[in-house]
Amino acid sequence: MYNKYKSIHQWNSFQLLLLYYIAAIALSTILLSLPVSQQPGIDIPFIDIVFTAVSAISVTGLSTISIAGSLSTTGIIFLALMMQIGAVGIMTIGTMLWVMLGRRIGFKERNMIMTDQNQTHFDGMVKLIKNIAYLLLIVEALFFVILGFYFTTYYTSYSEAFLQGFFAVISAVTNGGFDITGQSLIPFQSDYFVQAITMILIIIGAIGYPVIIEIKEYVFRRRKQEQRFHFSLFTKLTTTTFFSLIVVGAVGIYLFDFNGLFKNIPWHESLFYTLFQSVTTRSGGLATMDLNVLSNTNHLFMSALMFIGASPSSAGGGIRTTTFALVLIFLFTFIRGGRSVKIFHREVYEVDLNKAVTVTIFAIIIVFSSVILLTILEPVSLESIIFEVTSAFGTVGLSLGITEGLSAASKIILMILMFIGRVGILTFLLIFRRKKEPAKFNYPKERMIIG
Amino acid sequence: MYNKYKSIHQWNSFQLLLLYYIAAIALSTILLSLPVSQQPGIDIPFIDIVFTAVSAISVTGLSTISIAGSLSTTGIIFLALMMQIGAVGIMTIGTMLWVMLGRRIGFKERNMIMTDQNQTHFDGMVKLIKNIAYLLLIVEALFFVILGFYFTTYYTSYSEAFLQGFFAVISAVTNGGFDITGQSLIPFQSDYFVQAITMILIIIGAIGYPVIIEIKEYVFRRRKQEQRFHFSLFTKLTTTTFFSLIVVGAVGIYLFDFNGLFKNIPWHESLFYTLFQSVTTRSGGLATMDLNVLSNTNHLFMSALMFIGASPSSAGGGIRTTTFALVLIFLFTFIRGGRSVKIFHREVYEVDLNKAVTVTIFAIIIVFSSVILLTILEPVSLESIIFEVTSAFGTVGLSLGITEGLSAASKIILMILMFIGRVGILTFLLIFRRKKEPAKFNYPKERMIIG
Ligand SMILES: [K+]
Ligand SMILES: [K+]
Repeated sequence: MYNKYKSIHQWNSFQLLLLYYIAAIALSTILLSLPVSQQPGIDIPFIDIVFTAVSAISVTGLSTISIAGSLSTTGIIFLALMMQIGAVGIMTIGTMLWVMLGRRIGFKERNMIMTDQNQTHFDGMVKLIKNIAYLLLIVEALFFVILGFYFTTYYTSYSEAFLQGFFAVISAVTNGGFDITGQSLIPFQSDYFVQAITMILIIIGAIGYPVIIEIKEYVFRRRKQEQRFHFSLFTKLTTTTFFSLIVVGAVGIYLFDFNGLFKNIPWHESLFYTLFQSVTTRSGGLATMDLNVLSNTNHLFMSALMFIGASPSSAGGGIRTTTFALVLIFLFTFIRGGRSVKIFHREVYEVDLNKAVTVTIFAIIIVFSSVILLTILEPVSLESIIFEVTSAFGTVGLSLGITEGLSAASKIILMILMFIGRVGILTFLLIFRRKKEPAKFNYPKERMIIG
Repeated sequence: MYNKYKSIHQWNSFQLLLLYYIAAIALSTILLSLPVSQQPGIDIPFIDIVFTAVSAISVTGLSTISIAGSLSTTGIIFLALMMQIGAVGIMTIGTMLWVMLGRRIGFKERNMIMTDQNQTHFDGMVKLIKNIAYLLLIVEALFFVILGFYFTTYYTSYSEAFLQGFFAVISAVTNGGFDITGQSLIPFQSDYFVQAITMILIIIGAIGYPVIIEIKEYVFRRRKQEQRFHFSLFTKLTTTTFFSLIVVGAVGIYLFDFNGLFKNIPWHESLFYTLFQSVTTRSGGLATMDLNVLSNTNHLFMSALMFIGASPSSAGGGIRTTTFALVLIFLFTFIRGGRSVKIFHREVYEVDLNKAVTVTIFAIIIVFSSVILLTILEPVSLESIIFEVTSAFGTVGLSLGITEGLSAASKIILMILMFIGRVGILTFLLIFRRKKEPAKFNYPKERMIIG
């Protein structure tokens, strides 16, 4: 009974997710094809319209066209809505999956919002998702007002300032990463206020909705003086990894251009450059500098950060922070000779470790194959190809500037990568999974020599 | 009792292997430092002597000096002996490990050479290793005579022809990959006889000694009309993978330069170029062409082949064919939703799968970190760095020509990679493994969201 219920819902959720994204991409393509979406005299090629749609719905932000130079104000508003839809899709469906599977199994000791009755369960979930949606809208509205007014010092008209503010907030909090300035956040290179707000918004979008829900629950419960609150293992692990990687990223980016860019600029500029790039490289995709000024070592390092990406059930992509953390724990435990993996006084299921490892190896194979294909198709440096491919897979959207010149075949490869990166390798793999059949008989086991 | 016996022997064998290699490298460094080893007027820097020693003992063949231009005939004979010692080290100790651990557990149904009595066990093993050593010497002597006489058509004096033949045979069968022609096998670019013999020798060295033993057992048993012979799962899997990868490698190398090198040359030249490069890239390290004429895509593809490397307990390096095969099977089974992995009507132990996955991820981390470091240290293209690093880790010895110009720091990194690649990631990791302590209590388990 319970198993049947679970497996049907699981399968439907995966189907739902795919269907949602494919429908959203189709609709976006139609919307962007309308003459009213494009600037007068501009006729964007079909492949670039599809690419923009996939990039917006997967909240990546890679672009084969100049948004500022091709889309009308209507088109820009459409683009912002697409990012919103792309980010919210995983939020709702991802959170649904998390509530159904993750918490239900692991949190029996906690008084959960849902009970075993299906109805209440579903009600609780709908309420949950509504809550996050409201939260998101409130955050967006608040920062829209702040940035809109602030931008009046940059732009001559109120309408221009508020359009820029609107797009900047949506692009940051959805981790969409598109820009209508024509050069990302480079105009705000010395404006630490805009950068700080953008970082906060990117982090809200990338930290994972289950984490936001738990923080909300935590705040709510404390006020009522109820029983002691425990953050879930998932929240502890993903958040620790998330912020550790931001610090490691900033330090790494600094060190790898210690003798380059950061040699002759003041400490606070270095701090904001490295911190902002570290945050944005994990999913945001906005940039405060031309990334070509960084060293090749930094390009490779940032590729690794993009490959890891954001937290699960967030607006980000990549293999995700939990996957990365579980793989590290798995390796560390293996060296120590331990059999089971323990973190934060909890034991991790072996099936989760296997999943994490599978996701990572698959991701490496997919990224490597894409790099191989792009080296055939594009006469550009290997660094810029690796950067572009990991950027698409991590749904980050940063680039060393090769996107606009890519061949149609390469654009298609990047679209596939953005899609896989966004729905997640695991979801993607589960589409191909056969119904489980019980083994008819067991074969004898036999040992192997490894490496 | 049994467990204690096993773990002591296991640990001692790993220690033995490390000790063996460190002692061999120290001795080789001393031998190559002797004035009699170097050509008159040549004074090889110490770091390059150590590098040559590590490269020879790990049977890699990367060289920061020109062997033909620096070593005397005595030095060349020393170098050949070092390759022999390097190749035989893993053969004996690796085979010992294989006999002790692998077969003992998996082959209870077969009448093995060893019984539970320690003495007989050890006797059988010594006999086994002696047998392989004799076999190797016979192969070497035979091909030495063939190539020596054949080379009299290339070289004016008999002594030169036989020195060249001697070195060519040792370099090929040990997978050492050094050359004293000054340009690898390029002088034999059109000599399919020399190339065919070299390929056979490289394969004998790279296919794994346990496989050779089983083939020998197979031939021996058939003659006596004993019971039906079963090849072990290990031999089936490793050999299938080994030859499949040779075919895939040749086809890939052809396709990735379909419009380049292979466009205007006859089919038999293409065949020998691709086949020879495919064989040599997996561990041999000899080349019949300047690899710079191949495309960047091919350089990346060959880097992947070098990363995989040869079979376990052979003269090769890399993550090894079994590891690669088990990882693929692991991934495939995961997609299909199966829980246990079956190949050739046998089930694989989960602990072996975990080992294979661990080895692969560790190898990727080590290779990636080395590439990052070399991009800081060397002002050369990323392709040539990736090629050099995977060549060292796979103990292959191919290069795009950057070895001689490397900084001391990069040379040290490559030495470490050659060492790890040769002893194998698993052996390397087990050095750091703590004594297993039973867990004092179990933590509650908790599920995770992956990717
Ligand atoms: K993005
Ligand atoms: K070699």
